[in-house]
Amino acid sequence: MFFTIHHNDKNTRARTGIIKTDHGEIETPIFMPVGTAGSVKGVHQRELTNDIKAQIILGNTYHLYLRPGTDLISKAGGLHKFINWDRPMLTDSGGFQVFSLAENRKLKEEGAHFKSHIDGSSHLFTPENIVDIQRLIGADFIMAFDECTPFPCEYKYASKSMELTHRWLERGIKHFNSTSPLYNYQQFFFPIVQGSVYKDLRQKSAEFIASCNMPGNAIGGLSVGEPIEDMYEMLDIVTGILPADKPRYLMGVGTPVNLLESIAMGVDMFDCVMPTRNGRNGMLFTSEGIINIKNRKWADDLSPIDTNGTCFADHQYSKAYLRHLIVSKEILGAQIATLHNLGFYLELMKDARKKIKEGIFGEWKQEMVNKLSQRL
Amino acid sequence: MFFTIHHNDKNTRARTGIIKTDHGEIETPIFMPVGTAGSVKGVHQRELTNDIKAQIILGNTYHLYLRPGTDLISKAGGLHKFINWDRPMLTDSGGFQVFSLAENRKLKEEGAHFKSHIDGSSHLFTPENIVDIQRLIGADFIMAFDECTPFPCEYKYASKSMELTHRWLERGIKHFNSTSPLYNYQQFFFPIVQGSVYKDLRQKSAEFIASCNMPGNAIGGLSVGEPIEDMYEMLDIVTGILPADKPRYLMGVGTPVNLLESIAMGVDMFDCVMPTRNGRNGMLFTSEGIINIKNRKWADDLSPIDTNGTCFADHQYSKAYLRHLIVSKEILGAQIATLHNLGFYLELMKDARKKIKEGIFGEWKQEMVNKLSQRL
Repeated sequence: MFFTIHHNDKNTRARTGIIKTDHGEIETPIFMPVGTAGSVKGVHQRELTNDIKAQIILGNTYHLYLRPGTDLISKAGGLHKFINWDRPMLTDSGGFQVFSLAENRKLKEEGAHFKSHIDGSSHLFTPENIVDIQRLIGADFIMAFDECTPFPCEYKYASKSMELTHRWLERGIKHFNSTSPLYNYQQFFFPIVQGSVYKDLRQKSAEFIASCNMPGNAIGGLSVGEPIEDMYEMLDIVTGILPADKPRYLMGVGTPVNLLESIAMGVDMFDCVMPTRNGRNGMLFTSEGIINIKNRKWADDLSPIDTNGTCFADHQYSKAYLRHLIVSKEILGAQIATLHNLGFYLELMKDARKKIKEGIFGEWKQEMVNKLSQRL
Repeated sequence: MFFTIHHNDKNTRARTGIIKTDHGEIETPIFMPVGTAGSVKGVHQRELTNDIKAQIILGNTYHLYLRPGTDLISKAGGLHKFINWDRPMLTDSGGFQVFSLAENRKLKEEGAHFKSHIDGSSHLFTPENIVDIQRLIGADFIMAFDECTPFPCEYKYASKSMELTHRWLERGIKHFNSTSPLYNYQQFFFPIVQGSVYKDLRQKSAEFIASCNMPGNAIGGLSVGEPIEDMYEMLDIVTGILPADKPRYLMGVGTPVNLLESIAMGVDMFDCVMPTRNGRNGMLFTSEGIINIKNRKWADDLSPIDTNGTCFADHQYSKAYLRHLIVSKEILGAQIATLHNLGFYLELMKDARKKIKEGIFGEWKQEMVNKLSQRL
């Protein structure tokens, strides 16, 4: 059984479960640290496993395809071996980066033509070669190629784009089914719901994606600038349609509060650059609220970074020291803040699983949402 | 006994010994990783102690004085507590940075006026306040304020500068003797030999420094651009004069080969930014020679970074992966290269101590110098 649900919350749609892969089990709900180009920025692999207990990490197909490239990754026997990571891994489809990073993007029925943001070289991503690339990378979870619509996005464009994403999905599934994993372990293919902030499009897309009957389903195109109420509204519609017996993955979201609210709607998997990127810039997510460590008020606060934290970095370094490092642009500042934030996100997921099991997720969530929204 | 010599090599002036401080013992010869502003760039404190077994680290008085400042450091109870480091520590005198980094430097008899390279604020370092600052920082080893002459340097300037450094030293010692440590552990004050590349000046300076009868002695103003033969010639003169029963510290030097040659002349302590700074830029010092990991030839070399290495990073990551990280400017690349280089330097010192004990340092050194000079 790929996905087993263990507990369903009575008052919300939250649930706990286990996803089984050939690289081990994942407890859901789970957060996946983002390892863009084969590295979670500022964190050693052993820190991910031993210190913050990451159960799965994410790689970006676009970045990995451009650098180091699939030749080298396949020579190494896949990304797991190349970066020395033996737990599960997920790669996104490259769609988001093509639309946010690449230059001279041209969208056609066949796929997306673009130029590399690194050296300007020309490339083409198609629903088929994106499967091939992810076969070569060798992630446990691989994603369908989609267009991630920006916000705001006119209805007509959103509708046309969604239809294209659906046609691409059919080609992607066909190609996935006609090819095999390259490294002796199973790969699971997830389709992606699109539809911008339009209820009928989101409904249509979710129904189409559900009908594809893949082992898990992803929700894309959210947290791209739309009002937060829109995001939750779309999420509510989509999670109500995507089958309950399969994992639901909300792509690129979000704050700790976003995660808790989404879990309440039945989301099981998350990834986001926020804990890593914002951490490098001095924003800390803690059990008491959000800290901007650059703020003058922390300058001589010699208390530990987070006394409730579970990571060594929370206890071995003070707020004043971390502030000094971040203000002085010392690499160690980025390392500490990243470890702390990822540790906090993963601990929050662990707590959520515990509260769901105990049947008190709803009350706990409300309390946490209030706390975590505070700026200290 | 502050310094005990355990073994003297028969064929060279190399020796092993133990320096005792209130933060623990240091085996010499030793290399001190540079922790500029209270952090060895890219390395967690626990990695210094557990993984590469650093016995002592160095902080830069100039940087620490400007940021985070002595108010905060003393509020924390000294730099050890501020950064969470319980082993020995040494601070330089700030002289080198005043002359290399600061703006609008004006040298007077009283001291050095300068403007901060960070915010342009005006400051004055004197032989007395440099002692006070280092008392507040609380390093186990503190250095006299000196002028580090540049290269090239005219004889007349070098001579005048050396005399100034000597007068500053007398003031520094007087102030050191009339003040006490602030944190309940002993601090040791080292004077610094100057004299540029002039034999008679180096001789005169070494004799003066030796006559001060401090617990250890440092050699400054070398490895500042002079030909390597000049450096070794000056070192040979100076180490011949500085008392054999006290530790000799060669400041800011150098390559692994420089360290071995200097140990053969009786040097006991070293610091240098080379393993950290050059590491961040992709230069690796290994047991087989020097690697520029950015070089195309390492692009698909999937062998470990250094099979002879003693650090986890040497074995858990491949050359091709490290090259990818450095080329992609990933933080983890700097972290891995730094850990590797520092681990290599410290292991080289350990090997040197072993070979001295075994009485075969001379032969071993010659073999290593040939190996380590190679560019792979």
